[in-house]
Amino acid sequence: MRFYTALCQQQEELLVSLDGGKTLYLMKDLGHDYQDMNQLIASITKQEMDDLAIKAIFAVPAEEYRLLAPIPRPRQDVICLGINYDEHAVEADRFSPDAFGGQRPYTIYFSKRVSYSPGPEGEVPAYEGLVDSLDYEAELAVILGRDALNVSREEALDYVFGYTIVNDISARNLQTRHKQWYLGKSLDGFTPTGPCIVTPDELGDCHNLAISCSVNDEKRQDSNTRYMIQTVEGAISELSQGMTLQAGTIIATGTPAGVGMGMTPPCFLKAGDKVTCRIEKIGSLTNYIV
Amino acid sequence: MRFYTALCQQQEELLVSLDGGKTLYLMKDLGHDYQDMNQLIASITKQEMDDLAIKAIFAVPAEEYRLLAPIPRPRQDVICLGINYDEHAVEADRFSPDAFGGQRPYTIYFSKRVSYSPGPEGEVPAYEGLVDSLDYEAELAVILGRDALNVSREEALDYVFGYTIVNDISARNLQTRHKQWYLGKSLDGFTPTGPCIVTPDELGDCHNLAISCSVNDEKRQDSNTRYMIQTVEGAISELSQGMTLQAGTIIATGTPAGVGMGMTPPCFLKAGDKVTCRIEKIGSLTNYIV
Repeated sequence: MRFYTALCQQQEELLVSLDGGKTLYLMKDLGHDYQDMNQLIASITKQEMDDLAIKAIFAVPAEEYRLLAPIPRPRQDVICLGINYDEHAVEADRFSPDAFGGQRPYTIYFSKRVSYSPGPEGEVPAYEGLVDSLDYEAELAVILGRDALNVSREEALDYVFGYTIVNDISARNLQTRHKQWYLGKSLDGFTPTGPCIVTPDELGDCHNLAISCSVNDEKRQDSNTRYMIQTVEGAISELSQGMTLQAGTIIATGTPAGVGMGMTPPCFLKAGDKVTCRIEKIGSLTNYIV
Repeated sequence: MRFYTALCQQQEELLVSLDGGKTLYLMKDLGHDYQDMNQLIASITKQEMDDLAIKAIFAVPAEEYRLLAPIPRPRQDVICLGINYDEHAVEADRFSPDAFGGQRPYTIYFSKRVSYSPGPEGEVPAYEGLVDSLDYEAELAVILGRDALNVSREEALDYVFGYTIVNDISARNLQTRHKQWYLGKSLDGFTPTGPCIVTPDELGDCHNLAISCSVNDEKRQDSNTRYMIQTVEGAISELSQGMTLQAGTIIATGTPAGVGMGMTPPCFLKAGDKVTCRIEKIGSLTNYIV
C-alpha cells in the first residue's frame, strides 16, 4: 500500500495506491477524510487499511493531481542518523576530520527543522551568499505509526507505518562551522521527501534496497541499505529509550558514500542542478536547485 | 504581562497576570478562549493584549490552580545555544575536551525534543541504568510571537513574544558518546519550563538579568544574562537566515558556569534532588529528580 499527498484542484488531498503506484484513489472517496497525512498516520487502524482494498472504485487520473511531499509539514523535527554507512564515514572524514572524524562506537543522532518539505519535482533554494557547499544525501526514511517508548529491537519494526525517500540536503559550511550540525541541515527546503509512503508489507526487507542519487543524470551515490551500520530496528529501539517517539516521527537513516563533499575535489550543488534520489521499491524523488 | 498555563479543576487553562504575578485571571473569562498557549501565541494581537488590562475582573484564587509549563507541548523541538557563557566554556572543556573543547568562532546551535515539558514543581526522571551523569542548566528561554525569516539583528526583538526559564536537563554520558548532543538532551522530562511567559515590556532588558541555579538549596550557578556570548537578537537573526522560525518557537540561550560536570570532581543529579532555577523578573522554577 502506498500513501500520497497531492494537490488536486488546488486542494491538498490524501491518496492511496493498492497496486504499487499504478492507480491512485482519493482517501476521502474511500470514506476516510483526514485533515492531513499526520492525522492519517496517527488515526488509521490496521483493520481500516486492510479494508481499503475492497472499497476502491474511482481512480484519480494522473493529469488531475500533482504530488507533494507525503508529509508536507512534519509535526516535529526530523531525526537523522549521521555517518551510518562505512564508506561515507571515510569520505566525510577526508573532507573535515574535525567535524566528521574520530572513533564512533555509538550511533550519531541529530535533527533538522522542517517547516515545509518539498515533494517530487519541488525546488531547493541554493542560498547563494549564505551557503557555499550545498550537498545532497539520499536516505531511506522511516515513519512511525504509533508512539514508541522503550521499545526493544525485536518489537521496533511493529511501530513502523511506512518508508519514504528523503534527500537530506546539507550546507557543509554551516554544518561544520557551528560544530553541531543542526543549523546547516535546517534551512527552508532542505528536506525534500517522497514520492509516497510505502507500507512495510509492500516494501519487504528494509535492509535490502538499492539506494542511489544522481546529479544532472550522473550517478553519484550507488549503494544498498544492507550496508547501514545501525539498523532501522536498532535506531528506533535506541532512540526510544527514555524518549517518546510520537506517531508521525520521521527518522532518516543516513546516506551512503558519494556525496559532493566526498569527491576529489569536492563538487557541490548549484542553481540549475537536478538531483534524483532513488530507492528500490519506493521510487524516485527529483528536485531542482534554484 | 505574564501568561501561564495551569490546571484548574482538572482542565488545562490559560491565565494572565497584569500585576507581576500577584493576581491571575482566566483568559477565557476575558473573552479569549484559545485551545492552548501555542494557539494564543500564534493568534493574539498586540491590540488584544493591550485591551486585556481594562477587562480583567474575576481573579482565580491561588488554591484553585496548579501551574504547568507555560507551553506544555511545544509545537517543534526547542532550539538551544551551546556554550554561550565564557566561564561555562572553560568548565565544559575541562570535563570533555572532545565534546566541548576547541575554537568556537561561531555560535553552537542544537535542538532537543520536547514531547511534554514539566512545569513548576514537576518531576524529572533520573533514568538510572541509562543515565549516569544527569545535569542541570539554568537558561533564559525566548519565545517567538510570529514567524521570523531573514530577520536583522535590529528587528529581531520585535519578534519576541516573551521570556521564560528553562532547565536544559542533560545526560552527559549520552550527550558526549553520540557526538551530536541531541539524544542526551531529548529524554522525556528533560526540559522543564516556567513559571510563566513574561512579555518584553514587563521584562525590560533581557541582557541584564540575574540567573542562578540551586541544588537542594545550595547555589551552584550564579551569573547574569549580560555575560552571554551570542545575544538574543544575534541568535534570532542568525537562526532565521534561511530557516523560518515559526510563532511559538522556543530558543534556550545557553547556561552560565556552575553545572555539575564543571565541579571538581563532577557532581551529578540523583533521585531525591531538588533543583531551582531563578531568573530576575521572571521568577523561579523548581523541579524534583525522581
